[in-house]
Amino acid sequence: MTETTLFGGHPLTRDLSDADGVQFLDTTLRDGEQAPGISLSPDEKARIARQLDAAEIDVIEAGSACTGPGERKTISRVADLDLDATVTSFCRGIRNDIDLALECGVDGINLVVPASDRHVEDKVGTSREDNVASTVELVEYAKAQGLWVEVIGEDGSRADLDYLEELLGAAIDAGADRICWADTVGHATPDGALEAVSRLSKLGPVSAHTHDDLGLAVMNALVAVAAGADMVHGTINGIGERAGNVALEEVAIALDHGYGVETMDLTEVYDLAQLVANTTGIQLAPNKAVVGQNAFTHESGIHTDGTLKDDAMYEPYRPEKVGRERRLALGKHAGRAGVAAALDEHDIDVSDDELATIVGRVKEIGDRGRRVTDADLLTIAEEVKGTDRERRVELLDLTTIAGGGTPTASIRLAVDGEEREPASATGSGPVDAAMTAIEEALGSSVNWNLDSYHVDAITGNTDAVVTVEVEMSRGDRTVTVSNSDSDITRASVHAMVDAIDRLLADEDEPVVADD
Amino acid sequence: MTETTLFGGHPLTRDLSDADGVQFLDTTLRDGEQAPGISLSPDEKARIARQLDAAEIDVIEAGSACTGPGERKTISRVADLDLDATVTSFCRGIRNDIDLALECGVDGINLVVPASDRHVEDKVGTSREDNVASTVELVEYAKAQGLWVEVIGEDGSRADLDYLEELLGAAIDAGADRICWADTVGHATPDGALEAVSRLSKLGPVSAHTHDDLGLAVMNALVAVAAGADMVHGTINGIGERAGNVALEEVAIALDHGYGVETMDLTEVYDLAQLVANTTGIQLAPNKAVVGQNAFTHESGIHTDGTLKDDAMYEPYRPEKVGRERRLALGKHAGRAGVAAALDEHDIDVSDDELATIVGRVKEIGDRGRRVTDADLLTIAEEVKGTDRERRVELLDLTTIAGGGTPTASIRLAVDGEEREPASATGSGPVDAAMTAIEEALGSSVNWNLDSYHVDAITGNTDAVVTVEVEMSRGDRTVTVSNSDSDITRASVHAMVDAIDRLLADEDEPVVADD
Repeated sequence: MTETTLFGGHPLTRDLSDADGVQFLDTTLRDGEQAPGISLSPDEKARIARQLDAAEIDVIEAGSACTGPGERKTISRVADLDLDATVTSFCRGIRNDIDLALECGVDGINLVVPASDRHVEDKVGTSREDNVASTVELVEYAKAQGLWVEVIGEDGSRADLDYLEELLGAAIDAGADRICWADTVGHATPDGALEAVSRLSKLGPVSAHTHDDLGLAVMNALVAVAAGADMVHGTINGIGERAGNVALEEVAIALDHGYGVETMDLTEVYDLAQLVANTTGIQLAPNKAVVGQNAFTHESGIHTDGTLKDDAMYEPYRPEKVGRERRLALGKHAGRAGVAAALDEHDIDVSDDELATIVGRVKEIGDRGRRVTDADLLTIAEEVKGTDRERRVELLDLTTIAGGGTPTASIRLAVDGEEREPASATGSGPVDAAMTAIEEALGSSVNWNLDSYHVDAITGNTDAVVTVEVEMSRGDRTVTVSNSDSDITRASVHAMVDAIDRLLADEDEPVVADD
Repeated sequence: MTETTLFGGHPLTRDLSDADGVQFLDTTLRDGEQAPGISLSPDEKARIARQLDAAEIDVIEAGSACTGPGERKTISRVADLDLDATVTSFCRGIRNDIDLALECGVDGINLVVPASDRHVEDKVGTSREDNVASTVELVEYAKAQGLWVEVIGEDGSRADLDYLEELLGAAIDAGADRICWADTVGHATPDGALEAVSRLSKLGPVSAHTHDDLGLAVMNALVAVAAGADMVHGTINGIGERAGNVALEEVAIALDHGYGVETMDLTEVYDLAQLVANTTGIQLAPNKAVVGQNAFTHESGIHTDGTLKDDAMYEPYRPEKVGRERRLALGKHAGRAGVAAALDEHDIDVSDDELATIVGRVKEIGDRGRRVTDADLLTIAEEVKGTDRERRVELLDLTTIAGGGTPTASIRLAVDGEEREPASATGSGPVDAAMTAIEEALGSSVNWNLDSYHVDAITGNTDAVVTVEVEMSRGDRTVTVSNSDSDITRASVHAMVDAIDRLLADEDEPVVADD
């Protein structure tokens, strides 16, 4: 067999399967928060920090103490949580920054000093020599205060490597606990990462800090580990300046699945990703690796069919590994097996001919560019089987008044074919008001949970069509429904009423109005 | 100097800078479209195909002819465009699939045959030997019809490598133009990619098809090229099954910036990314490399300050390289330099003391988790400078009726301190109606453009607070305003009226009502 080696066997790199013990430094609360438009409150940072700790992250960079009093309060809050993780503050190469970090009660600091000539000379306005001298002074000062100290050479990937060695070597000699190769601007090639980290790892423990401007953040992190780095900096979901930092969940799954190396607790990753997305408002792309909505969703016929035969047919690892579940979706590429499985979930028996017709109708909806929801499938199945049912709940009329004053809605419903008394209600917005009115008209015997209410981002003009998708449940039944309209109020209320109707469809109990 | 080599110098890999001539096969219209919930019309596929061709993509996989008559119409449409790119259809290992592709008039086919035992035996239900024999037959048949033929070994990364060599070697011997190493389920490590592609590239021209389930799609594509692959399969924005295919724009920028290798025309990438995102509805994460909204946005004080001194301080390459512009944003991490630059853009002079106060106020807004818009900055500057101005346009009352019937709105405005006649209008939704009423009340002398109207995705309950951000322009002035409310109608209309007020602020002309 030809000998071909990348990480395994090359004399200057280690086999990644020997990389056990690699630690993670999470900078979601610092570099992540520096992404435009994010600001986390003390409570929010504390909640994320607790979850990071639960996921066995080793070091949590809680913020940058120099940012201001608000930020220092937040860092103190995290430092006081008594986590297993080491809690640090980011510090510029200024003694006052270290003092401010000390005020927050952190365990350590990530001390950033300029490394490239562009940063040493043009940004900070010092010289290479003075920069080394001041770094040594700062490290000695911080160590004398009992801090864990990591020295980051900013813009290290564009620095003269001989100088970077001199600078970070001096930091280690002055007592720094570790040094960090930082690809601050996301400029490095893997070749560059390999060369730099190989040389730096001879000086002492090395961390790698990578950014994704070239799409190489994960690659450079892995190359750095292969070259001897034993700590990786990154954020959850890969948020951060510009194209973001490396996503720790991706480094973790690559090391785990590819090389059998354990780092963080992967089963916590999905909840963590949701928490970070919801708290920061930086939503995940559906195709985001590991944590995106579609990462374990199969729609195309070939893939669904294969997956139903064998879970592993189209998946590299089980979704449960990262705290998730598999989903089969129906759409334009749907095949017989996928549709049959979905009908089965709703306890609907069909003949082969009926199935073929239903598959055709599902593909038609998909062809129009729509996701096929439960409600769509059930309606099609009823029509094809000729078992058209009477709607249990139908919205006859909806009027909402909003914009100023108190949002108000009135509705008229038919329940089991009989028109109910009109109802009206107020709410925090027109949809909220309408749903309260519907609750009133239906009476207290009908209750439900709105499990999710999602409106895609609207971009365009004021007459853009909006698609609303809701998931509602009652007892152990769950149903998804979508509705599109250029009036978001109408789209939302119709989707919810359709969902309630579906939830009641299989029940025999009459829906009794309150007295 | 220590010799450390990854792609350069390893005896079994080539230096990536020698990779000139690497071609791109774009599968946005096939593998990309297989992502859940996407369906592209013939017109949409044609528009994307034209843009791919303009971006100098070499091969465009237009779809899968076996999907159905609608899909075949679409593929024919793309094949008839007379593009420079080779246009292909995906075909399963079935003679009828090839015939259907021929009907569409494509230049070639991507013939997928099972390669791993799981796919050969469990999915397709054949044997290794029969699979080789039928592959040879299919290749001979397709070549006899004059097609360009690429044979893809499905699930190749989990196949026995000796068998994969046998299968794809037989395909080449039968006349296939190229073979493809496919990491169908996103399972491969870079070590695996290197070993497989090194061996396969001895048989004939090799393509690499990578997926991002482990976050390694770009890495494996680059490793494959270093191992001898001369074509990379991928999609725009990295859409596709599960976590998606490799994003071609990331492979392109990594090869260009890192190794000086030209592939597609990068200046077309941003427009292409927008087109694909808007057509498929798969929105980009703001931190997506190359094409995400924030990829060239700087907010933090240190980064903004550095960037104002030297564009390249915090960027690996200029945004113009990928058809974009740099943006400076204001928020919690804002510093003096960034705020001063933003004030300067609005021609506002401030003293040092005033600047310090304004920076503090900007940070306060940022601390509350909000992006600081132009309107926020201008309001703060006016208050700090004591130049509070009278509003030119003020919304005194807004009522909208929606939900059923015809969406209707009535408004009352004050213009330059005087109340106008109330106005009402209908529209496609309540916001649309309200804006038409406002146009009427203001009169035809005031016109404006709504350049963008964006509502973040809403997830939660019906009383969730919605943030609306608008960008409006008039002449050469542009202004951004945001507004948050649990009533989306109110948030939208208030944001737009505030923007109109700002746009008129510097003009002396009275706003005259129509007769």
